[in-house]
Amino acid sequence: MATELAREDLHASVSDPASASMNFLNEVSARFPDAVSLAAGRPHEGFHSTDDLDRYLRTYLAHLEGLGLDADQRRRQLLQYGRTNGHLGVLIARTLLLDEGIEVPAQAVMVTTGAQEAMVVALRGLCAGPGDVVLAVEPCYVGFTGAARLLGIEVVPVPETADGLDPEAVLAVARAVRAGGRRPRALYLVPNFANPSGVSMPVPARRRLLEVAAEADLLLLEDDPYGLFGLDEEPRPTLKALDTGQRVIHIGSFAKSFFPGVRIGFLVADQAVTDAQGRRTLLAEELSTVKSLLTVNTSPVAQALVGGFLVESGCNLRTAVKEKTEFYRRNLRTLLAALERSFADEPRVRWNAPAGGFFAVVEVPMTADENLLEISGRDYGVLWTPMSFFHAGDGGRRALRLSCSALEPDRIEEGVRRLARLVRERADTPDPAGPGRAAVAADPAAPAGSRDPG
Amino acid sequence: MATELAREDLHASVSDPASASMNFLNEVSARFPDAVSLAAGRPHEGFHSTDDLDRYLRTYLAHLEGLGLDADQRRRQLLQYGRTNGHLGVLIARTLLLDEGIEVPAQAVMVTTGAQEAMVVALRGLCAGPGDVVLAVEPCYVGFTGAARLLGIEVVPVPETADGLDPEAVLAVARAVRAGGRRPRALYLVPNFANPSGVSMPVPARRRLLEVAAEADLLLLEDDPYGLFGLDEEPRPTLKALDTGQRVIHIGSFAKSFFPGVRIGFLVADQAVTDAQGRRTLLAEELSTVKSLLTVNTSPVAQALVGGFLVESGCNLRTAVKEKTEFYRRNLRTLLAALERSFADEPRVRWNAPAGGFFAVVEVPMTADENLLEISGRDYGVLWTPMSFFHAGDGGRRALRLSCSALEPDRIEEGVRRLARLVRERADTPDPAGPGRAAVAADPAAPAGSRDPG
Repeated sequence: MATELAREDLHASVSDPASASMNFLNEVSARFPDAVSLAAGRPHEGFHSTDDLDRYLRTYLAHLEGLGLDADQRRRQLLQYGRTNGHLGVLIARTLLLDEGIEVPAQAVMVTTGAQEAMVVALRGLCAGPGDVVLAVEPCYVGFTGAARLLGIEVVPVPETADGLDPEAVLAVARAVRAGGRRPRALYLVPNFANPSGVSMPVPARRRLLEVAAEADLLLLEDDPYGLFGLDEEPRPTLKALDTGQRVIHIGSFAKSFFPGVRIGFLVADQAVTDAQGRRTLLAEELSTVKSLLTVNTSPVAQALVGGFLVESGCNLRTAVKEKTEFYRRNLRTLLAALERSFADEPRVRWNAPAGGFFAVVEVPMTADENLLEISGRDYGVLWTPMSFFHAGDGGRRALRLSCSALEPDRIEEGVRRLARLVRERADTPDPAGPGRAAVAADPAAPAGSRDPG
Repeated sequence: MATELAREDLHASVSDPASASMNFLNEVSARFPDAVSLAAGRPHEGFHSTDDLDRYLRTYLAHLEGLGLDADQRRRQLLQYGRTNGHLGVLIARTLLLDEGIEVPAQAVMVTTGAQEAMVVALRGLCAGPGDVVLAVEPCYVGFTGAARLLGIEVVPVPETADGLDPEAVLAVARAVRAGGRRPRALYLVPNFANPSGVSMPVPARRRLLEVAAEADLLLLEDDPYGLFGLDEEPRPTLKALDTGQRVIHIGSFAKSFFPGVRIGFLVADQAVTDAQGRRTLLAEELSTVKSLLTVNTSPVAQALVGGFLVESGCNLRTAVKEKTEFYRRNLRTLLAALERSFADEPRVRWNAPAGGFFAVVEVPMTADENLLEISGRDYGVLWTPMSFFHAGDGGRRALRLSCSALEPDRIEEGVRRLARLVRERADTPDPAGPGRAAVAADPAAPAGSRDPG
């Protein structure tokens, strides 16, 4: 007799609402292949060739030889299981020092199967019981809220402002959680050019957030996939670079600086952990057990590709990714200029002006839900991501996220023209320029808009 | 102020006892580098060279070209994120058909970051609430019990016999669990040459286990890392090959057939899942959300290496791994012959005679704990794994696991000679050949011994 399972008997994470939303988005994209996708946040594909792969491997093998490893040891490092926390600790620590001024020992680095696994490892390690919760910026990257759901960990949202998280709001939420008898273990955020909002935290707010973390006895889970891609050269120190008290667990990814298919990310956790016998280790070392139970270790061959890339770059990613940075800068400037052109005379539409990264948020005079997305793909030939996908509650209903990472500039411009037609024809708020001019119906959950693309 | 964390505030999986045991083992190995390690269960390292990697990539790229993918599509398949369940479904389904007679659609295959992630995905998907538990063979592979601990899922042990799991014992345990108000969702086992015990299930017992699974409404999580490495050509059909009612989730790994550093495993789940609207999918498709929240997807570049290997082999692993099979056969025969030579006159020592795989279990006249292991490494120059590491309770105290996969035959023989000296000098049961001959103190938890290496 054939086995029949009921979906409702499977774990809640199988029906993860954000994943369901993303599946819907993929499905719409597949049904309307000619639509311009301002939804896809993946990196542009033109920077690497499969012909380069062998060179990266050979570069890394030569590097190992230079370190004194004989042929058997080099083969073992790439083809055997290897160390749980990976073999790139020294190169990644050096890169963090040169690029970001982050000073951590190699032992504080864990190489992970992308940044996603790093989130799972940190969440699992830190949250020990049902009273342990995490705070997270809202709107939030769906991979983080989904990972928490997978582990049965509650996420308490802290609303983001146009300047990113307000440290005092974080303090208030952490205190309220503690007053309610639960323990806030960490706060997840993306300080640079966040996904989905594009916003960044000013440096003074970063410093204050570190104080707040100490006051509230919170760790900060800093995710920094986009930090290399600012519009200008203004230094934006990561929280980890400012962190003199080991309050920050830093999560990084090579998906954008190198390429996604390598699936290599990392976690930096230099916090001291003391056991009942007084023995001290680093948090990254303690978390290696969790990592081993998820994936044993991260593919040493894939690590070797990243190793070759880091060796070639002299552990200086900011220089190595220059071509990518120029590409993404041009794309973001193109997006913001196109929004200005298409919506300059449209006061019902507002958008923010991120200082870098892959995303911007547009507030629109209508409900930007799955229904509108389907209409947009079918009748207007443009796709975007409803901001509601990134909210646990009912926030973001009249806002959408635009991505500019995967397309060429002319397609971005065409996408925004199509979006403008959609808004003109489908707005449910009367045009204030017309008769009976109405107030702008701002969505309080959407980031404060701006029409300055600068 | 420096952040100080208490280990006891971290999740229980950080202190996973089996992982702690394995760490102890690694530490002892590091302290006594000249000891012969009959503890390491890793594959032998001599079968592949880093020079082969580029050929596997090129073979797979040529295969994709043959399927009609243009240069951009081929690059995208290796370097972009790609499909959550991976791009090897068709090749793996074909290999399972040719090698094992397993007939499943490609959509039922999920490529995972090693077999470990496949276990986590299956456990997470199947166990929805606190009343959902899994059954597992005991002694058990520590990666499985650890993965369950990571997710807070209780594991109910079913003791293994010399012939593997007794289906009637499984039925009894499943019924007892259900009578206690909990839901047994699945049973984990390794039917071929199990880790750690080396034992295999006879084919009639496999058939009966499938009936039991249907009667008890259990799924079977069949892990088959060693099936290619039997001592003879006798067919040992996997549970999945015998599974006409989709009762089996099959877990596989390329760590032994290819090499561990590629970190590619897979899960086959062809069970029908129906949602509240009556929409039907396959379990592997439903579980893709869980997979995406763990690691997004499995490195497409690493997948391409396996793809090249499968294409080169014509999807016929049994032929492709012939050299490996011969090597492991010789090693296991060497181990069993050495045990026979060293312990033929020692009735207090018994061991089993696995029909294949990497492991055998030896019952010894003393407590084989961490203390003895330390003495064994330091004073006798031989390492092994206490069988107690693989038991949740206090089983396996007077038994140890010997691995023969990583060494050359002369080292295996030397290791067994050293072990014999340890047993002679450290036994706590009087030698029955000497004065005051005592009864053999058999450990009831150890597998029934045999001194026939056949």
